[in-house]
Amino acid sequence: MKLLSAMILTGALGVASQTAVAVNYNWEALPDTPPIPEDNPQSEEKIALGKTLYFDPRLSSTGTVSCNSCHNVMAGGDDSRPVSIGVDAQKGGRSAPTVWNSAFLSAQFWDGRAPTLEEQARGPVTNPIEMGMKDWDETMARIKAIPGYADMFEAAFGKEAMNADNAVKAIAAYERTLITPNSPFDRYVKGDKKAMTEQQVKGMNTFVEVGCTACHSGANFAGPTMPMGTGFFMKFPTFEGSDYDKKYNLLEDKGKDDQHMWRVPTLRNVAVTAPYAHNGQVPTLDEMVRVMSKTQLNKDLSDEQVADLVAFLNALTGEFPEQTMPRLPATPNTSFFKE
Amino acid sequence: MKLLSAMILTGALGVASQTAVAVNYNWEALPDTPPIPEDNPQSEEKIALGKTLYFDPRLSSTGTVSCNSCHNVMAGGDDSRPVSIGVDAQKGGRSAPTVWNSAFLSAQFWDGRAPTLEEQARGPVTNPIEMGMKDWDETMARIKAIPGYADMFEAAFGKEAMNADNAVKAIAAYERTLITPNSPFDRYVKGDKKAMTEQQVKGMNTFVEVGCTACHSGANFAGPTMPMGTGFFMKFPTFEGSDYDKKYNLLEDKGKDDQHMWRVPTLRNVAVTAPYAHNGQVPTLDEMVRVMSKTQLNKDLSDEQVADLVAFLNALTGEFPEQTMPRLPATPNTSFFKE
Repeated sequence: MKLLSAMILTGALGVASQTAVAVNYNWEALPDTPPIPEDNPQSEEKIALGKTLYFDPRLSSTGTVSCNSCHNVMAGGDDSRPVSIGVDAQKGGRSAPTVWNSAFLSAQFWDGRAPTLEEQARGPVTNPIEMGMKDWDETMARIKAIPGYADMFEAAFGKEAMNADNAVKAIAAYERTLITPNSPFDRYVKGDKKAMTEQQVKGMNTFVEVGCTACHSGANFAGPTMPMGTGFFMKFPTFEGSDYDKKYNLLEDKGKDDQHMWRVPTLRNVAVTAPYAHNGQVPTLDEMVRVMSKTQLNKDLSDEQVADLVAFLNALTGEFPEQTMPRLPATPNTSFFKE
Repeated sequence: MKLLSAMILTGALGVASQTAVAVNYNWEALPDTPPIPEDNPQSEEKIALGKTLYFDPRLSSTGTVSCNSCHNVMAGGDDSRPVSIGVDAQKGGRSAPTVWNSAFLSAQFWDGRAPTLEEQARGPVTNPIEMGMKDWDETMARIKAIPGYADMFEAAFGKEAMNADNAVKAIAAYERTLITPNSPFDRYVKGDKKAMTEQQVKGMNTFVEVGCTACHSGANFAGPTMPMGTGFFMKFPTFEGSDYDKKYNLLEDKGKDDQHMWRVPTLRNVAVTAPYAHNGQVPTLDEMVRVMSKTQLNKDLSDEQVADLVAFLNALTGEFPEQTMPRLPATPNTSFFKE
């Protein structure tokens, strides 16, 4: 008895997490680099241009909304809001997905309608309730009227390369640098068994046992690796009829092909991207865990299971690389904005 | 004749700016550091906290507006707009002044109503049309609900120091790092006679001869050095009755004490902070030069004088220090924003 007490005490003090043993599952750490398309190789100059465009609010009609306004890379890559607020205080219909690790997804937007980050980047700029530019001609006319961008485009793409295709290529190249490796989960998977707490290991096991991995598999917890442009979709809610359908208005927006199909989102950094769901109506992560288990797996989890899963999901918050701020090139002696 | 031709040729090719000789005036280069108040000494930890708060949009009612939204340090420290757009698309009445080098001013806001950067920082957060927080109690409740801020406040100010006074002290400490030295003008004044073009030297002389230095004196081109809290004010328009009064609506806002008195703004980086005037109604720098010479000095300048002055003012654009992005601490598993 004395020996046993001593062992328990040791466990409680020093090596608690070793008492939880991970169930067998093919966990994958996040790769350091995402897939890079052949027609848009990375370069330092392209990334620098893309970062500058990403932060430039002059790509919006009012000069107040940049890509970063809704996909804030100083935070979780989103805006902590149910739905974003674009120009003229207009609200979007869907919650801004995180830009972090989006380069690993094989389709973009909640309904996967953009096959690549390049095509995604084309959208918000000319969306009337997001950045509100009339079209990309107007957008490029602005960019061309900012003298400092000429050299940046030339450095990235060569001469006479100031066009929308290259603008979105540059933005996508920057976004492909937005990777968050070395989460406690990644370190655990790579062999550091103290990187996760005992509860997080328990939650990791629960994640497999309950069935979350049916959709949230792969290194990005967003489904299996697929050819770029494919997208990995799931019906949400799969099990209709729970109280959550009404409580969180889950059925109003019918998603892809009006079939309630949605691109499975990454769970990386999910703890820092509340609120949740395509419409941002679910306020907390523990509630979202309950919603998902009910609507997707038809399971009512215990409080303990929910707490363990939330603990595990918190282990998916990675390291956000330090970044320098871009310097937005000026329009010397004048401005686009008159009123 | 041959010798003279050769000398002229040499001048034209290599040392053109040396043909313009600066008139005698006590020009001052920008100091590397601004005045630091005794009750708010700089520290690395305080600056880091201040930068984080400065970029945190959760200090606004909607979570969409940070200090940086209107005083963008990736640009000229303003928003390139006539007047700013705050929460719910509300427009302010006055143009956002640049935050760069504001630490050298002895009063803040267009009407100088804040004696210090600390007091200035209190204002926009609770202004209903800017950041829209109810009061600083609500603001501090939010900041306290973001776990990561606790350590940052403690590192900057010690234990139990999470209060509004310290929040604005931290923001002010960060703003005191926003200095842009080494403009062509500064390098010229320090002895590098090639740092400005011949036209810029001509414009510098015109600046003295026309009388701009009556107000725009000192290292910051914002008036003489004065005790913090004093402010250096001038009536604008001093000479009422020009067409500009109506064209740019210069008389509607009566400024300080309803006397059309305005804090003289810095001219540093003025080329990258269009549009101009307290109401942002003057679209270009050359037009603003005409407006000021007419309304303040009762002079109609020639096109050449205007061009020379604009060239000189472009020599006041300094070096913007490279900055790392702050990381906004998360509200794990939840968000402040429900709709």
